[in-house]
Amino acid sequence: QKRYSITLLPGDGIGPEVISVAKDVLKLTGSLEGIEFNFQEMPMGGSALDLVGVPLPDETLAAAKHSDAVLLGAIGGYKWDNNAKHLKPETGLLQIREGLKVFANLRPATVLPQLVEASTLKREVAEGVDVMVVRELTGGIYFGQPRGFRIDENGEEVGYNTEVYAAYEIDRIARVAFETARKRQGRLCSVDKANVLEASMLWRRRVTAIAEEYPDVELSHMYVDNAAMQLVRNPKQFDTIVTNNIFGDILSDEASMITGSIGMLPSASLGSSGPGLFEPIHGSAPDIAGQDKANPLATILSAAMLLKYGLEEEDAARWIENAVLDTLNKGFRTGDIYSTGTKLVGCKEMGEAVLRSV
Amino acid sequence: QKRYSITLLPGDGIGPEVISVAKDVLKLTGSLEGIEFNFQEMPMGGSALDLVGVPLPDETLAAAKHSDAVLLGAIGGYKWDNNAKHLKPETGLLQIREGLKVFANLRPATVLPQLVEASTLKREVAEGVDVMVVRELTGGIYFGQPRGFRIDENGEEVGYNTEVYAAYEIDRIARVAFETARKRQGRLCSVDKANVLEASMLWRRRVTAIAEEYPDVELSHMYVDNAAMQLVRNPKQFDTIVTNNIFGDILSDEASMITGSIGMLPSASLGSSGPGLFEPIHGSAPDIAGQDKANPLATILSAAMLLKYGLEEEDAARWIENAVLDTLNKGFRTGDIYSTGTKLVGCKEMGEAVLRSV
Ligand SMILES: CC(C)[C@H](C(=O)O)[C@@H](O)C(=O)O
Ligand SMILES: CC(C)[C@H](C(=O)O)[C@@H](O)C(=O)O
Repeated sequence: QKRYSITLLPGDGIGPEVISVAKDVLKLTGSLEGIEFNFQEMPMGGSALDLVGVPLPDETLAAAKHSDAVLLGAIGGYKWDNNAKHLKPETGLLQIREGLKVFANLRPATVLPQLVEASTLKREVAEGVDVMVVRELTGGIYFGQPRGFRIDENGEEVGYNTEVYAAYEIDRIARVAFETARKRQGRLCSVDKANVLEASMLWRRRVTAIAEEYPDVELSHMYVDNAAMQLVRNPKQFDTIVTNNIFGDILSDEASMITGSIGMLPSASLGSSGPGLFEPIHGSAPDIAGQDKANPLATILSAAMLLKYGLEEEDAARWIENAVLDTLNKGFRTGDIYSTGTKLVGCKEMGEAVLRSV
Repeated sequence: QKRYSITLLPGDGIGPEVISVAKDVLKLTGSLEGIEFNFQEMPMGGSALDLVGVPLPDETLAAAKHSDAVLLGAIGGYKWDNNAKHLKPETGLLQIREGLKVFANLRPATVLPQLVEASTLKREVAEGVDVMVVRELTGGIYFGQPRGFRIDENGEEVGYNTEVYAAYEIDRIARVAFETARKRQGRLCSVDKANVLEASMLWRRRVTAIAEEYPDVELSHMYVDNAAMQLVRNPKQFDTIVTNNIFGDILSDEASMITGSIGMLPSASLGSSGPGLFEPIHGSAPDIAGQDKANPLATILSAAMLLKYGLEEEDAARWIENAVLDTLNKGFRTGDIYSTGTKLVGCKEMGEAVLRSV
């Protein structure tokens, strides 16, 4: 009997609903594989702000650090949108990424055959899209110093941030990306703005250097503006993309929307050791929170990534992935992916359907 | 008889071909409106590098500054891709933007009914899209100091850039954007990353303050990752977008690809006084250069923007816009926008068709 401790961070909005469903799915698959999970729920985001006045309580970070993996629902909501920076739910998210040192964010964007119609792209463009975006997550302009506000020599108020990468930060994310590409189709596209930015010039130089360790992976480079175009023009050209924190934020969201079903997409954030952080890429959707309308599949698939990338329990992960496909094949759909001829269900019912398919 | 002096910067790749066609169109429309143009061709980009060793010769900038408007073809090519930064064609482009102080870059992305099939988006999503991206062009991370490379305290090489905006830079681009939105549907969406970046927090604060001067324009705010998604999900929700230099680079290219016909899209870069810079948004397309295959319509439409925004010759601009639509209605298409049932023509023939339609 294997035992793992999992920190659950339900967060805000639809977070608690989707986490509750994913927890049940984890329990069941665990029982089939002789795995026992020890779950601990901790507050984070807006709900932590309301409870204890900070978006990431020390106890939450400590619990996360001491567990084997962390599963997060979603954070944020209108209520806290105008808070000062250190009191924003988003700040808690950045703090836990930094605290867990999860520098590699894997964001798959896959168009499932069952859901190809959900894409706004023409069928022939969307069909078969399967992109993995590897986003650097603990560096760059998100965390760079100096940052802040000042009054300049003309008495003007100025806001500033620093985009900064050290060679080792690029090297380690590049290695994760090459390893990822190697397990996929063996093609890696590194996205930067090396025709303008020094930080990108170093990025390109280091990624090119690390490529020597991976002669079996085909490396290409693309400017970020072109990548934003190519994702719309022909997303199938991409296998694995690696890019910095801010470009990865933008491009992974664009890629996810190309699949037409962001309610379906999971993500994994990994460090070199210690627990990984797993979360759906969708937000907290305050408009449908508490109404049993949320699509729990992104969180369920995040639980599968947790098993695969976080605990190396690939068999258990496969149970979940197959159960999700089976559930879709049976025609179950939440509102966000509904089309005529399919069965409209709520969050709980979708969870039960997945449990029956495991 | 009105007289204007126009600096032509053919540049590299297909630049000379499309500029030559646009020049003829300008001449003809001018003659219909009693306008005489005095054209001066100057070297820039890779061709200037080959000729005199710098991407923007002093004489070129001086000529541009002393003219009434500048029309640029395209710059860049594989040949110069590995040049040091100060010897890149792109650096010449940044230098002329800075030299002419053209801080406001207007990039329309319109899906013409004649070309709706060229979009990779479904007809019902693409039809009627008409977005204007107003991009800040002379500030932000493109020009921010400090920038460069250094060795940090751990002996690691580091590359860094500064994203920085002063209040006056935001105020002036915001005013251009509000004025632009006012002449369109009156809806302005300001795109930033104010949940993470101080530079964006100041951006949002200033745009919100300037909004008081434009009570007739409806202002909304959106995070850049969400904007990248929403452009794919439902581009019709946007009227005018205003954003910083780097986000504008990415989002305007994404928006242009959504129209499916980047060979059709013009741009205008304007300062508070002095000549504007007008150019197609497509690149130098070295693979088809010199083969009479380029689509000259983006440059022809840039000439129309030159007349409208640069010289306030709206009537002459309309001649050109109507001639382009008429040419498309007659079925003329270059390779990039060709579909069965239309007439495939080269760059010159397309130019002649437009001249006949003026
Ligand atoms: C909420 C926000 C801080 C976050 C980010 O920008 O990283 C989100 O957009 C994401 O991509 O996970
Ligand atoms: C060539 C490059 C420097 C330029 C930019 O990034 O501004 C281009 O992409 C553009 O958008 O005009």
